[in-house]
Formats: sequence, C-alpha cells, structure tokens
Amino acid sequence: MKQPCVYLVGAGPGDPTLISVRGQRCLEAADVVVYDHKVHARLLRGARRDAERIDVGAAAPSPFDQDAITFLLAEKAREGKVVVRLKWGDPFVFDSGGKEALFLHEQGIPFEVVPGIPVTIGGPAYAGIPVTYPGAGDVLVFVRGHENESDTAPDVDWNGLAGAAG
Amino acid sequence: MKQPCVYLVGAGPGDPTLISVRGQRCLEAADVVVYDHKVHARLLRGARRDAERIDVGAAAPSPFDQDAITFLLAEKAREGKVVVRLKWGDPFVFDSGGKEALFLHEQGIPFEVVPGIPVTIGGPAYAGIPVTYPGAGDVLVFVRGHENESDTAPDVDWNGLAGAAG
Repeated sequence: MKQPCVYLVGAGPGDPTLISVRGQRCLEAADVVVYDHKVHARLLRGARRDAERIDVGAAAPSPFDQDAITFLLAEKAREGKVVVRLKWGDPFVFDSGGKEALFLHEQGIPFEVVPGIPVTIGGPAYAGIPVTYPGAGDVLVFVRGHENESDTAPDVDWNGLAGAAG
Repeated sequence: MKQPCVYLVGAGPGDPTLISVRGQRCLEAADVVVYDHKVHARLLRGARRDAERIDVGAAAPSPFDQDAITFLLAEKAREGKVVVRLKWGDPFVFDSGGKEALFLHEQGIPFEVVPGIPVTIGGPAYAGIPVTYPGAGDVLVFVRGHENESDTAPDVDWNGLAGAAG
C-alpha cells in the first residue's frame, strides 16, 4: 500500500468497528484521508497522526462539490500520496463512488474499491431485523429515499415470487 | 465478549480481509467457530488455536441440516461458550441467519448480529462495477439465483425512475 493510489473505502453503517479489516489497513497506510461528515470520528483516529485529514462535508454533496472532491483525490494521488476516500456505508451503493472511480480511471490514476457494509443492511441487522428471511421472498429491493418519488414505487410481483419460492 | 453468546458474523464476499474489524474480534474471542464451506480458510486462522472448529458444509443446507446447525449453536452457548457462526457474505441477506436469530431469541440465548459485506455488492465492487451510479437509478434490486424463477422477474418501472431522478 505504499504506491500512490486512491482507495475508495466504505466505512460501514455507523459503528466504527464495522469497517473491514482491509479498509482499516488502508487507513493506517494513508497519507491523506478525505472523509464525509457522517464517518465516525473514532475511525479517523485509525489513521497516522501525521496523515492529512480533509473533511469534505455532507455525504451527498452538490454536483459542484462532487467535482471538487474528485479533482482533490486525483491531485493528491499525483503528488505521490496514498489517498483514502472514506465514505459512509458502501462507496458504490447510492453514493458517488461510481463517479469518483470513473474519473480516476479516465485520468489513469490507480484506484481500488474496498467495499463497506451498506447502511440499508447494517442498520436493520443491528436491530435484529433480517432484510431477507428464508421463504419470505427472493427479491430484495432498496429504494433511495427521495421526496419526489411517490409516483415511482417499484412494482415487484411479490405474490408470484412467494409462489415460486414455495 | 467473554459472556456466553452467539455471534452471527458475516465473513464478506470472499477476500478474508473484507470481514469487519468487529467480526474479526469476535473470531479471536470465540471458543467455538461454526462455519460454512465457502468461508475462506485464512479467516479461520484468526480464531484461537484451541478454539473448536465445526464445518457445517454448504452455505445453503437442507432444512434438516439447518435445524441441526441451529440446535448446535444453542447447545454450545448453553455450555457457557462464546460461539461464532461464520457465514459467507452477510448473515441476513439471502441466508439462514434470520432463522438462527429467531431460534436463539426463542430459546432466550443472547446473540448479536455482526453484518458482513453482501456477496452481491462486494463482488461487483472489486471488479470496479458500482451497483448503483448517480443518476442511473434509485432502485437496487437483488434477485436470488434460483432455477425455477424465470416466471418471476421483478417488474420495476426503470423509465419512470430515471425520469423522476432527473
């Protein structure tokens, strides 16, 4: 992990011990940590004392902010640094990780995705609620919580599924 | 973690470093590890040398096997042991973790769920494929890969969603 590289790391759903072992190792190796507000402060203590820590605000920034973050990641990597982009939940589930990965790829900057436990799974599980249960269904649907989506509820044939699953 | 307790731990999607830090700590504390075939052998080395290791076979056992596993977890916990049930992926996403949790609850045996990175997310992410992308959709659908479900494809209104998401 000493090569210049950007690690897009999922911090998991809140509890700082739910980050992956690999994610924690990336943090320990990082020269620069670029993190969201929602990331637990205790996680940041896992980075080296002399690592640069950059708070880029909310987890769902405006398009302008997102571009700025993406350029920042590329710039720091070009300086020869190990960069960790620490994101709440999983970097790819309803998050901007896809945009960041695509930009880094286009710029020829090495990057690696270290998945995290999605918020939609870890939260219910901690409360003892399985998001699926054997025999109860074979389809799992996550819908992003937007305000203007009342007209777009997913239309899944639950009855057909329950019948097919026996 | 020294109280008798069953920890239902998600091992993540394959790479043994994708287990959570908390999951690894549970493993280190375990007196008994009950694991699936699919769990990476390197993970088991994280348990104590004197920990009992019980291979319970495939990740999707027959109903009889599942009952046997569930009773085994309860029996070991009643012997005053720290039990880790190590499962591929996440214990609650398309897995039998829900059944095990419900049984332990009914038996009054303390248990804790330590979520893992679901196979459906970690696999694509490692290949650089985001399962969601900003603007590309607000619904994420996982369908269990069964043979007899060709008649039950989820019918999601993708066009409506794309329009609503702008």
